[in-house]
Amino acid sequence: MSVITLTTDFGSLYPASMKGVILSIDPDATIVDISHSVPPIDIRAGAFALYSVVKHFPSGTIHIGVIDPGVGSDRKAIIVKAGNQWFVGPDNGLLIPPARLLGDIEVYEIIEDEISEHISSTFHGRDIFAPAAAHLSNGMDVLEIGRKTDDYVDMDFSGYTIEKQFIEATVVYVDDFGNIITNIPGEKILDEIEIGTVLSVSGRQMPFLNTYSGVSKWGLVALVGSHGFFEIAVNQSSASRLLHMTNGNSIRIGIIGKT
Amino acid sequence: MSVITLTTDFGSLYPASMKGVILSIDPDATIVDISHSVPPIDIRAGAFALYSVVKHFPSGTIHIGVIDPGVGSDRKAIIVKAGNQWFVGPDNGLLIPPARLLGDIEVYEIIEDEISEHISSTFHGRDIFAPAAAHLSNGMDVLEIGRKTDDYVDMDFSGYTIEKQFIEATVVYVDDFGNIITNIPGEKILDEIEIGTVLSVSGRQMPFLNTYSGVSKWGLVALVGSHGFFEIAVNQSSASRLLHMTNGNSIRIGIIGKT
Amino acid sequence: MSVITLTTDFGSLYPASMKGVILSIDPDATIVDISHSVPPIDIRAGAFALYSVVKHFPSGTIHIGVIDPGVGSDRKAIIVKAGNQWFVGPDNGLLIPPARLLGDIEVYEIIEDEISEHISSTFHGRDIFAPAAAHLSNGMDVLEIGRKTDDYVDMDFSGYTIEKQFIEATVVYVDDFGNIITNIPGEKILDEIEIGTVLSVSGRQMPFLNTYSGVSKWGLVALVGSHGFFEIAVNQSSASRLLHMTNGNSIRIGIIGKT
Repeated sequence: MSVITLTTDFGSLYPASMKGVILSIDPDATIVDISHSVPPIDIRAGAFALYSVVKHFPSGTIHIGVIDPGVGSDRKAIIVKAGNQWFVGPDNGLLIPPARLLGDIEVYEIIEDEISEHISSTFHGRDIFAPAAAHLSNGMDVLEIGRKTDDYVDMDFSGYTIEKQFIEATVVYVDDFGNIITNIPGEKILDEIEIGTVLSVSGRQMPFLNTYSGVSKWGLVALVGSHGFFEIAVNQSSASRLLHMTNGNSIRIGIIGKT
Repeated sequence: MSVITLTTDFGSLYPASMKGVILSIDPDATIVDISHSVPPIDIRAGAFALYSVVKHFPSGTIHIGVIDPGVGSDRKAIIVKAGNQWFVGPDNGLLIPPARLLGDIEVYEIIEDEISEHISSTFHGRDIFAPAAAHLSNGMDVLEIGRKTDDYVDMDFSGYTIEKQFIEATVVYVDDFGNIITNIPGEKILDEIEIGTVLSVSGRQMPFLNTYSGVSKWGLVALVGSHGFFEIAVNQSSASRLLHMTNGNSIRIGIIGKT
Repeated sequence: MSVITLTTDFGSLYPASMKGVILSIDPDATIVDISHSVPPIDIRAGAFALYSVVKHFPSGTIHIGVIDPGVGSDRKAIIVKAGNQWFVGPDNGLLIPPARLLGDIEVYEIIEDEISEHISSTFHGRDIFAPAAAHLSNGMDVLEIGRKTDDYVDMDFSGYTIEKQFIEATVVYVDDFGNIITNIPGEKILDEIEIGTVLSVSGRQMPFLNTYSGVSKWGLVALVGSHGFFEIAVNQSSASRLLHMTNGNSIRIGIIGKT
């Protein structure tokens, strides 16, 4: 009777089958949707979505993540344990950054025969991950459905540069406000750039501040968002639309200096 | 204290009133959203949405479906029982295919006076179906709020042809990946067409396979989806956008043969 | 262990952090999403969304509303009590109309230091409102986290005129069907205009009726919607698209008379 969360690129409808399966196995599970509108097959965006929320969930929470372009191929299904939370999903890197955020990780390969007699080749979210999570929620020992492994696909949000005059980074997520979230952790940018510094992007200047409301309406602003990453926003509007940037884009930011 | 599901074309906001009503009557109900983005007044698409999930829900589940162009007219409100699950909604065919999938059906006409003193003419989801479902969830006998009837609007997903050289079918649902789901049950197509057969649609060839990942990225593929119906998909993209097809369209598929 | 509802303009992802925070404090809370697609920073639309549902929720329900353009500025965080329900959110008017609908209101300013050690400057939904609501749900006395105040931002849906030959109103909400919902309460319009009266908008005639289905498909119709306000709809289609009207627009409706 744990909290079980769902993060997918399924949109509507398919998540409901997963919920039916979960409630058939553990009627007392509390199911929480993280997002079902992760951009299709964007594994890094899905990893970011989970990364941005896991610290706020209670001990014992089980997170199912299904951004799974390899479904039906021979990619493994895994369970990851970290910091007394669990992650269940495909072995493609998706689960690793949020798990690592919570502490050291243990990875288990799911033994599919222990989960289900009938496994479709197209919907492992329903046929493998949901039942595995529900069994864990019921208190089943992970070793009854998985075996420990050190062989898994790794992933991190690295790959950015903070130089004297510019920053290079990757867009990991555009949220529903149109805020452009980069892969630079907040503490890394705050080590290098002072609050109040003027930056530039695509020929436009923007201050590095603490809040959206520190600039006037429609003003461009850089800040560390509530998710803990460096982001570019437009106060009360969409930076993504203004700058034509989306998930996976490289972004180059000039460092102009203190005013 | 059952699971109560909701399937509507309401988008956001209106489902919340239904949830408030349910929780006012049965505070222990577990509410699950199937979809609130069924295409407006598309009764067959709503029936398909429910059809694709009901087998995965536990015994005792109560499904509310509200795709209801006739609200405020004299169409009846009904409760359908099948296979130890319940369906509550308008008498327009919506509930019948998912109920039949579970077994023989019993249909009850809801006696509206037993449900509520104040029934709006525009929102029976909130004023009739939600309280009826919540009373059933509380254990009330169906005969306290309904009377058995054999007079109801029927519906099925039939109306397809599988010939030697071509297939004719109807699109019942386009999912959020853009997969084009037809009204041909998986077992019917597998009886006639072998896996590996080359098919064609709109002048493009596509193999009939088991998985999306059996074709390369952006490749067109036909398969039996996890919902149990024959569908046309583009690996990692949208078949609906490629082929300009949507719910209700007729579709003609050529059978080219084994390679 | 109350019902806790969420109304925001966050889209996906961010509400999940709020749910994690709530369930960490009160594992038995029942969380209900009202809407996360309120138009960005449209405080009046958010107030309307809450207004349209609160009467249907059980006694003790706690509603969190976060339409919050002033986050990070010095606007207060408040708790409002009315009719045995609670409202938690920013002090910008959002919570007042739905609370007043339930009865006399009491307003408390949240003492932020009592809620959390670490409060971000960008996400008070997660850092202040969610924990405040969860503590109330756990039975904490409101005076442990707030102090009573008479100083708060007021708001109502007034500002309409019903004359002999015309009506002037404001669009407060366009729902997901495209129905145009005005700020005129149903009882006010029914006092002045008889059912059956012919009205006009943008040069088109429409009857004032009880139901959508009283006009033929694609017919324009005026009615009091299930939310209790005067609205303009197109049967089985979108009035918003037909008339190019959206939230905040002024609308002028001619009164032609009985047919």
